[in-house]
Amino acid sequence: MAIGNGLVDPVTPINGVKFCVTQAGVKYSNRDDLVVIALSEQTISAGVFTTNKFCAAPVHIAKKHLCEAKPKYLLINTGNANAGTGKQGLKDAQTSCELLAKQLGCNSNEIIPFSTGVIGEYLPMAKIETAISNLPAVSDFKDDHARAAKGIMTTDTRPKAASIDFEIEGQTITISGMTKGSGMIKPNMGTMLSFIQTDVDVSQIDLQALLLRATNQSFNRITVDSDTSTNDACVLSATGSSGVVLNENTLEIFETKLIELMQTLAHEMVRDGEGASKFIEIKVKNAASNADALSIAYSVGHSPLVKTAISASDANWGRILMAVGKADAGSLDVDQVDVYLDDVCIVQNGQKHPDYTEQKGAAVFAKEEFSIIVDLKLGESEECIWTCDLSYEYIRINAEYRS
Amino acid sequence: MAIGNGLVDPVTPINGVKFCVTQAGVKYSNRDDLVVIALSEQTISAGVFTTNKFCAAPVHIAKKHLCEAKPKYLLINTGNANAGTGKQGLKDAQTSCELLAKQLGCNSNEIIPFSTGVIGEYLPMAKIETAISNLPAVSDFKDDHARAAKGIMTTDTRPKAASIDFEIEGQTITISGMTKGSGMIKPNMGTMLSFIQTDVDVSQIDLQALLLRATNQSFNRITVDSDTSTNDACVLSATGSSGVVLNENTLEIFETKLIELMQTLAHEMVRDGEGASKFIEIKVKNAASNADALSIAYSVGHSPLVKTAISASDANWGRILMAVGKADAGSLDVDQVDVYLDDVCIVQNGQKHPDYTEQKGAAVFAKEEFSIIVDLKLGESEECIWTCDLSYEYIRINAEYRS
Repeated sequence: MAIGNGLVDPVTPINGVKFCVTQAGVKYSNRDDLVVIALSEQTISAGVFTTNKFCAAPVHIAKKHLCEAKPKYLLINTGNANAGTGKQGLKDAQTSCELLAKQLGCNSNEIIPFSTGVIGEYLPMAKIETAISNLPAVSDFKDDHARAAKGIMTTDTRPKAASIDFEIEGQTITISGMTKGSGMIKPNMGTMLSFIQTDVDVSQIDLQALLLRATNQSFNRITVDSDTSTNDACVLSATGSSGVVLNENTLEIFETKLIELMQTLAHEMVRDGEGASKFIEIKVKNAASNADALSIAYSVGHSPLVKTAISASDANWGRILMAVGKADAGSLDVDQVDVYLDDVCIVQNGQKHPDYTEQKGAAVFAKEEFSIIVDLKLGESEECIWTCDLSYEYIRINAEYRS
Repeated sequence: MAIGNGLVDPVTPINGVKFCVTQAGVKYSNRDDLVVIALSEQTISAGVFTTNKFCAAPVHIAKKHLCEAKPKYLLINTGNANAGTGKQGLKDAQTSCELLAKQLGCNSNEIIPFSTGVIGEYLPMAKIETAISNLPAVSDFKDDHARAAKGIMTTDTRPKAASIDFEIEGQTITISGMTKGSGMIKPNMGTMLSFIQTDVDVSQIDLQALLLRATNQSFNRITVDSDTSTNDACVLSATGSSGVVLNENTLEIFETKLIELMQTLAHEMVRDGEGASKFIEIKVKNAASNADALSIAYSVGHSPLVKTAISASDANWGRILMAVGKADAGSLDVDQVDVYLDDVCIVQNGQKHPDYTEQKGAAVFAKEEFSIIVDLKLGESEECIWTCDLSYEYIRINAEYRS
């Protein structure tokens, strides 16, 4: 299952970014599972990574390399997360970088490694070594964003890649990105492998700050199943090839567009969430603080009872109240709470709106995409998250994965 | 689905406690759905209630009445939670008490009301009034604990009632209790309707303290689906009919036995958890604090990915590491963590134990009941929670409930 038609627009190539995709046979044969993204000499990169304390070996190496050098290549494998693999895992991630560095002619810390797949198994290094030694020269790398987006998939049912074009000072700027992830999705800081590039010229400090802020309005605001991956990572690279240098006037334009693109990618992960048949926006308005708003939004978005009711198109809105009430929010006056399904007011001042009818609620719950809006009428803070339903299909996928 | 054979031993009657069960037709006809528990004049009661801020109208009234008077009757209806019903809900809960007070001859604040069922609908007061007016005289109430335990069920597949007998100063003391609840189970302070009685003689202050401590080692340590109900409540009543007065020497004996009984009832709720096919104990040992231990235990116990792997008997232990790592625990050294499935060591110092084999893990995961033990090797705190798996059946029940 998945919601909507996926992202079908072609991805605009970024001057200074090329891709190479191959089959290493990490877990499955006859399937692309190793992707190399080549970044031009001038490219600046910034990264955000999972806050899961059992973070994967490649996450440790990626953070270290990002501090030490300017990345030239991003190396991604699927089928194996290289997490829970201790010292051997760190060695394997390091060796992967060394092999690629030797093959492509650079220092190993100019390579940022990423893995995704099953946790707790060692990387099949012989297969990785063979695949890397068969890679073509960088001059033969291609603009094939679409194939790369497919090459990083695991339980995803479709690739997720998008572009956004806009003007700054009369010059066209492009941001293009891809992401993968469908389950174990409740990112915290980064998300399950996302690679975004732009041709803008920007300092590393500004780029890192931009990425953090945009992540907090996109990947850090989605949840499929409340589980935070060990391997979440998002890297934003700026090639500078457009010649446009971001300054204090244009940074905001860029940031707005970056958030727009990252939200598109984040939403697409939810639309392709494991077993998803509904895409739900949960907005908490007029909270006393952003922390309260987020806590209530996630309490609703993580509730298995709310999510199964959505799955069944059953407007069992009492479960929404239950989830609002169980949230760990400092300020909540239940007698003031309003709840809307799109523009249908179900709950007014903590109880059923006199005009609400089962038909009105059912009509919204039957939709493939809708919003749940909780108005606390306490303050001015607002947060919005996106999630999907919890279906039979989620259980099937996760009971069968690995087998 | 449910695990084990349920609680089959007959429940020992408590002198001073009688039951009356009837059909009010609140939601379904031909089904017991209204239970009255009569307590003798001498009986002392203590209660704990949900911390959900959208707590139900009867919870408000129950707390108020418990403060105002010594309870003579507990009035329970199923089929309707009377939550999210605002002022009308409060009035209905109050009216229910007044009707019963008039019928049985007492003050309305000597009655403690409880409701469980669908959230957001008004109580069908005409039906409740008719049912109450047809109740027999108290002298005709019976020792029928078993039928009462069935009368408070909603999605439960079987009644849950148990007794424990033991001696204090050569006298036999009995504690008998019943509970209901199968979904929306992650109690916090009390739990989805549990009524426990004993014949010991104890002060109200001691009884309330005993109930709180025992709740924190039983109902507040279980989770089916992480959702905290709006109606959770647990009442412990002591009739004093044994003539044994608890003192500082005997309080501990009583407390141990009370915890034992309440754990039995709490475990039975998990064994009958919605869609449950496995009963899992999650123990976190040698944590720096109890808060850390609990946070990690619940992170594992709430993870949909861990719970679906358990459902599928797939020893995908990497998901346990993921859940340990995503927990909001202050102190965690991932390189020291050991994880056991019963006595099989899977993870030693943060990575796969050299002797671990898939067969060993699969053999434990195939069992109907097993333990996941996480040893943090940091301090001396330990916490234990109990949960079940997440199955297709859970989705079916919660997608269909109400319809």
